[in-house]
Amino acid sequence: MNVYESLLELIGDRERVSINETVLEHHSKGIAYHAPHAPDVVVFPKTAEEVSRVMAFANEHRIPVTPFGAGTSLEGHVIPVAGGISLDLTLMNNIIDIRPDDFLAIVEPGVTRLQLNEALKRYGLFFPVDPGADATIGGMAATNASGTNCVKYGVMRDQVLGLEVVLADGSVMQTGSLAVKSSAGYDLTGLFVGSEGTLGVFTRLIVRLHGIPEATTAIKVCFPSLEAAAQAAFAVLKAGVGPGKIELVDEATIAAVNAYKKTDYPVKPTLFIELSGSPSSVEDGTKLVNELCEGEGAVSFVVETDSLARAKLWEARHHAAFAIQAAYPGKAMLSTDVCVPLSELPGAIADTRRLVNEQNMTAAIFGHVGDGNYHTVLAFDPNDADEMARIERVHAHIVRYALSRGGTCTGEHGIGIGKRAFLREEKGDAVLWMKRLKQLFDPNGILNPGKIFLP
Amino acid sequence: MNVYESLLELIGDRERVSINETVLEHHSKGIAYHAPHAPDVVVFPKTAEEVSRVMAFANEHRIPVTPFGAGTSLEGHVIPVAGGISLDLTLMNNIIDIRPDDFLAIVEPGVTRLQLNEALKRYGLFFPVDPGADATIGGMAATNASGTNCVKYGVMRDQVLGLEVVLADGSVMQTGSLAVKSSAGYDLTGLFVGSEGTLGVFTRLIVRLHGIPEATTAIKVCFPSLEAAAQAAFAVLKAGVGPGKIELVDEATIAAVNAYKKTDYPVKPTLFIELSGSPSSVEDGTKLVNELCEGEGAVSFVVETDSLARAKLWEARHHAAFAIQAAYPGKAMLSTDVCVPLSELPGAIADTRRLVNEQNMTAAIFGHVGDGNYHTVLAFDPNDADEMARIERVHAHIVRYALSRGGTCTGEHGIGIGKRAFLREEKGDAVLWMKRLKQLFDPNGILNPGKIFLP
Repeated sequence: MNVYESLLELIGDRERVSINETVLEHHSKGIAYHAPHAPDVVVFPKTAEEVSRVMAFANEHRIPVTPFGAGTSLEGHVIPVAGGISLDLTLMNNIIDIRPDDFLAIVEPGVTRLQLNEALKRYGLFFPVDPGADATIGGMAATNASGTNCVKYGVMRDQVLGLEVVLADGSVMQTGSLAVKSSAGYDLTGLFVGSEGTLGVFTRLIVRLHGIPEATTAIKVCFPSLEAAAQAAFAVLKAGVGPGKIELVDEATIAAVNAYKKTDYPVKPTLFIELSGSPSSVEDGTKLVNELCEGEGAVSFVVETDSLARAKLWEARHHAAFAIQAAYPGKAMLSTDVCVPLSELPGAIADTRRLVNEQNMTAAIFGHVGDGNYHTVLAFDPNDADEMARIERVHAHIVRYALSRGGTCTGEHGIGIGKRAFLREEKGDAVLWMKRLKQLFDPNGILNPGKIFLP
Repeated sequence: MNVYESLLELIGDRERVSINETVLEHHSKGIAYHAPHAPDVVVFPKTAEEVSRVMAFANEHRIPVTPFGAGTSLEGHVIPVAGGISLDLTLMNNIIDIRPDDFLAIVEPGVTRLQLNEALKRYGLFFPVDPGADATIGGMAATNASGTNCVKYGVMRDQVLGLEVVLADGSVMQTGSLAVKSSAGYDLTGLFVGSEGTLGVFTRLIVRLHGIPEATTAIKVCFPSLEAAAQAAFAVLKAGVGPGKIELVDEATIAAVNAYKKTDYPVKPTLFIELSGSPSSVEDGTKLVNELCEGEGAVSFVVETDSLARAKLWEARHHAAFAIQAAYPGKAMLSTDVCVPLSELPGAIADTRRLVNEQNMTAAIFGHVGDGNYHTVLAFDPNDADEMARIERVHAHIVRYALSRGGTCTGEHGIGIGKRAFLREEKGDAVLWMKRLKQLFDPNGILNPGKIFLP
């Protein structure tokens, strides 16, 4: 049997079944350090029915299937480590329905968050989850993504009310409903969100929308030390200001952004805070944030309300990830993703900084400190085995510190390839039950094999 | 084998293994219309270890186990329909840890929400889920309860960050972590929340806490018609006021409360709204709510900010369920629990009112209109088969109306016994997967048999 010919017959469109080298290469990797591996063939379905046909075929012939969206995964989720089919869902990018009065949209998995937000603007609504990259809604659901807005609006699992999922055998299941809450049986929607393409392929998602706040203010505060900035973030959260975003960027990252964007931001640990709501609540909140930051020794405090000025103020934060990559051309990137209980955040960040300094590593530290989640981005040469091993030891130390404080190895990036051993450390015997769930939904192990679980 | 003697040996405390008639009777029912059925024996464990021993024993001997908390279930969840062991968790009522800086508490399943809130008061924190009754946290997690506060704070599944669960075979599993978000593997916590005691027994829960808002205002608005009140609720939600609570009570319920509490509330469809946050945001919100309600023809508008006056203003809503019971002594109660997309709420309530009027039924309608969830409480004589059949036809009509609009048969009460057929109608083939999950975690079918699924 020739897999390519068979798939061509199933799909009936030479443009949407590809073994072109460039296409295979594009589907061989995410954007992080993991070793690429090309699929044998890439299929671009346009309907759930086509996804169903591909899955039934793959299941019958035991061919691995790895779903692919925008390709912005940080943990190797989209790498077809066992070859087989890369299922590229970017042509399934229709916004099926926007129900502004219900604060809901129904979308295909390949719709990106910027595409959705562009379509929502005229209704005064927006979709809040923002992982940085212009990821697809399907991919964001697959990793339970979150990002800067989640301290106010919740993570991807909180936004997805229902799914259409094609299962390993090609059958199609509907979960959830258009109601914003339900106690009807087991939460299959929540089980599939965050399953990283290992339990099924999303072909339709019902997502919650939110009203664009009446007033929004952006605040940028510089601190003398990373610890002071982390303490200030903690103070703001404790005071119940309810920020829309609260992000920390360390000195090394600001320096990298300055180099990358030719800017001259003060090279200081910086908090980026967004407040949103009614004009008076935003005004009250800004005053309170100012007092709290001064209490932690803030050295500068800038407030912008105009939308262009706000965007400019946030630039240093938004360019952080790209700036780090640009600062170390040719190097590979590993981003840690631990999340700790809020009170443990200042200590965790201090411990991480101490460690990377000790190791003379060029690390950037930034993240969503509003929910205890921060990233340490480490640049290294993937061909230098010693350096790689050293980086992995640092990663393990950071994860174990977080776990010893009751935290998690991944706040938002997922397990993928890179954190499979940590999952076992974190979850213990619960991983055995996760494996049984995998076995139940995908008995032949064709759905994104090699992810989440160590062989 | 004598089950009672064996359990006595396992627990080693005559006070905590009971076959006393009064105790068996207490464990034979919830608070709704479902036919009671007594367990053979009631066990009151004090530790997870004891729960584990009971489960291992029950699993070996294929004895049904039905978890029991405050007994306030509305769908017969706690009725041991197949006899066996009623596992009363009310002695496991320790608050293990309060971590105010992390906005977390770790509790045993028998802790009630009022008990927890009493302990939290001195930290300026509270646990927001309020289903009305003083239910246990374990029971509330088992049904994914919500109630009045959930429009602002989310449902039970949003509050539970982790669980200790004793599985059918007696093994103990830990899920989740102390981090407020995680993408580490499948969401077992969310799968167990809402599983109605059919997948495992909770012995410990990590729950989120929230800061008590600085300012709170209660608003009571009377309308000329139920439809006008529902439209006003919808207008308030659309305007982005972000109410803390928004509850609708219809005329029949107000009349029942007046009779029950000797009050003289105007017998009009009434909206109860709570706004909370910073003083200025609450003030802005109150003005906006006033304008919106006047736009829908409000006939009275009362605002209270003082905490005693607020409590008094909310009384009519809080007494609703009890007043209905008191108004029809000797009758059984069926409460519908559909949840529809927000825009469908006014139409759904109008349809329900039309139907019960047509049927000359004495029905009260009230509910959490902020998330599209409303209850129709119907009083009837459970010994009158004709009346029972008529009530069930009305229930089926209300559910099918909701399902035809993309809603759910249960917003917060769960499936239990009473909605098993509706679950199948609502979820289709997804129910087969729910059954397979049940089979995976409880192969001998000993955990709360007869619930969620029709035999």
